[in-house]
Amino acid sequence: MNENVRNFVQRDAFALNLGIRVTRAEAGQAAGTMVIGPEHLNSAGTVHGGAVYALADAVFAAASNSHGTLAMAIEVSMSYMKAVREGTLTAEAQEVSLNPKLATYVIPVKDEKGDLVALFKGTVYRKKTRIEELYAG
Amino acid sequence: MNENVRNFVQRDAFALNLGIRVTRAEAGQAAGTMVIGPEHLNSAGTVHGGAVYALADAVFAAASNSHGTLAMAIEVSMSYMKAVREGTLTAEAQEVSLNPKLATYVIPVKDEKGDLVALFKGTVYRKKTRIEELYAG
Amino acid sequence: MNENVRNFVQRDAFALNLGIRVTRAEAGQAAGTMVIGPEHLNSAGTVHGGAVYALADAVFAAASNSHGTLAMAIEVSMSYMKAVREGTLTAEAQEVSLNPKLATYVIPVKDEKGDLVALFKGTVYRKKTRIEELYAG
Amino acid sequence: MNENVRNFVQRDAFALNLGIRVTRAEAGQAAGTMVIGPEHLNSAGTVHGGAVYALADAVFAAASNSHGTLAMAIEVSMSYMKAVREGTLTAEAQEVSLNPKLATYVIPVKDEKGDLVALFKGTVYRKKTRIEELYAG
Repeated sequence: MNENVRNFVQRDAFALNLGIRVTRAEAGQAAGTMVIGPEHLNSAGTVHGGAVYALADAVFAAASNSHGTLAMAIEVSMSYMKAVREGTLTAEAQEVSLNPKLATYVIPVKDEKGDLVALFKGTVYRKKTRIEELYAG
Repeated sequence: MNENVRNFVQRDAFALNLGIRVTRAEAGQAAGTMVIGPEHLNSAGTVHGGAVYALADAVFAAASNSHGTLAMAIEVSMSYMKAVREGTLTAEAQEVSLNPKLATYVIPVKDEKGDLVALFKGTVYRKKTRIEELYAG
Repeated sequence: MNENVRNFVQRDAFALNLGIRVTRAEAGQAAGTMVIGPEHLNSAGTVHGGAVYALADAVFAAASNSHGTLAMAIEVSMSYMKAVREGTLTAEAQEVSLNPKLATYVIPVKDEKGDLVALFKGTVYRKKTRIEELYAG
Repeated sequence: MNENVRNFVQRDAFALNLGIRVTRAEAGQAAGTMVIGPEHLNSAGTVHGGAVYALADAVFAAASNSHGTLAMAIEVSMSYMKAVREGTLTAEAQEVSLNPKLATYVIPVKDEKGDLVALFKGTVYRKKTRIEELYAG
């Protein structure tokens, strides 16, 4: 990923705090991982829906901002398929639609066996702000 | 909330780790709060969509499990309306539908001014497991 | 409803073809009805999910265009709660958020008993085009 | 498709009434087409969101019932990408998850150029009823 996108990704405090690592973000595509720890679990001892969402959402932000202009989530839907307790989750964003104002992404989240844990679909509104302007001194 | 529900809520490690506090959970209704801190922010310096989701999702879990049987999220959709930087977010779950297998909840998330920050809609699959069995010694 | 909105609603060929009647559309609110007929049924003999959606979607269009500027659906989610076979369905749109570019609506669809049949949530992108310009000679 | 599935598809009065043709339904996959006519248009003269949804929903029903047991839609989300005025729309269902109680499908709807018009994601609850029992004399 280029420097502006890398800066952007590295400033995602929420994702960093949860141990989410964005490994790729370029041209509308992105990927990331999260190693499941006790801090990600829900009351039933499986990974919290919110933690799975956070991983997908961080990858969504990386993919949708990878074009260099600020993208803001407006609508997301998430289907949960499988409860998992441990291991590493991976998420990969595919950009299914891109126009000047709106873009849509589909992001499967998988476990180590390659089983689908959840499926995220999200749409952003694309602003004119360049992402590097966010941190201008 | 009764003891089993309170135990259930207090075992939500993910929500606790994010500073989410479930303040009410009874008869399909629930409420919670999250005081925004630096760990909840995204790359643009506003509250991360994933953090807003986590608050709504914790309240969703509390409401849907408040009947005493284990409920698992199957589908969620989230609309984001307003970016916020600070203060306390509140979420309140309303149970709009309940049948033996499925139940649906609508959860507005609001900021301190009472403005709608996001609107969450989620459906659970209701298992036969009693929530107190999850921790049976 | 004012004349421009009435013209707009009366040009919705798809809704008219399905017997959907929009009864109110003003200031972001709207309502409509559909009398269930054999043409609305699915393979199981109950009202088709697509027919319930069509009713909600027509009311969504009426509410979101009631401000006088063209609104286009970008994202919708629909929860189905109850299968019905006959009678009249009613839908009422509530505008939960409105800003210059985006607006979000929640639309419960109910049967004659007042039971919730489905719950629709949808977001539009608001263009600058005035709805009366659509039909300018 | 086998005889029971064909019978099931041919009893979808709503889809037939709208000119939707399911061309394939087997092992969780399905496809269909709709030739756009004046009865599918909205107030802006483009294909109604409800008509696009109806096509996707008919293919969703065909795919989810193709296993031979009755499947009922519980949650759907739909993203709209492109407005179209004429030609033939096609929809193809991919089954992304299947378990005894729940199954999830992703269904892109495309125009004649192959452009994505809308993206449908839906989850069904799978009953034990065999689809051929629906019409038992």
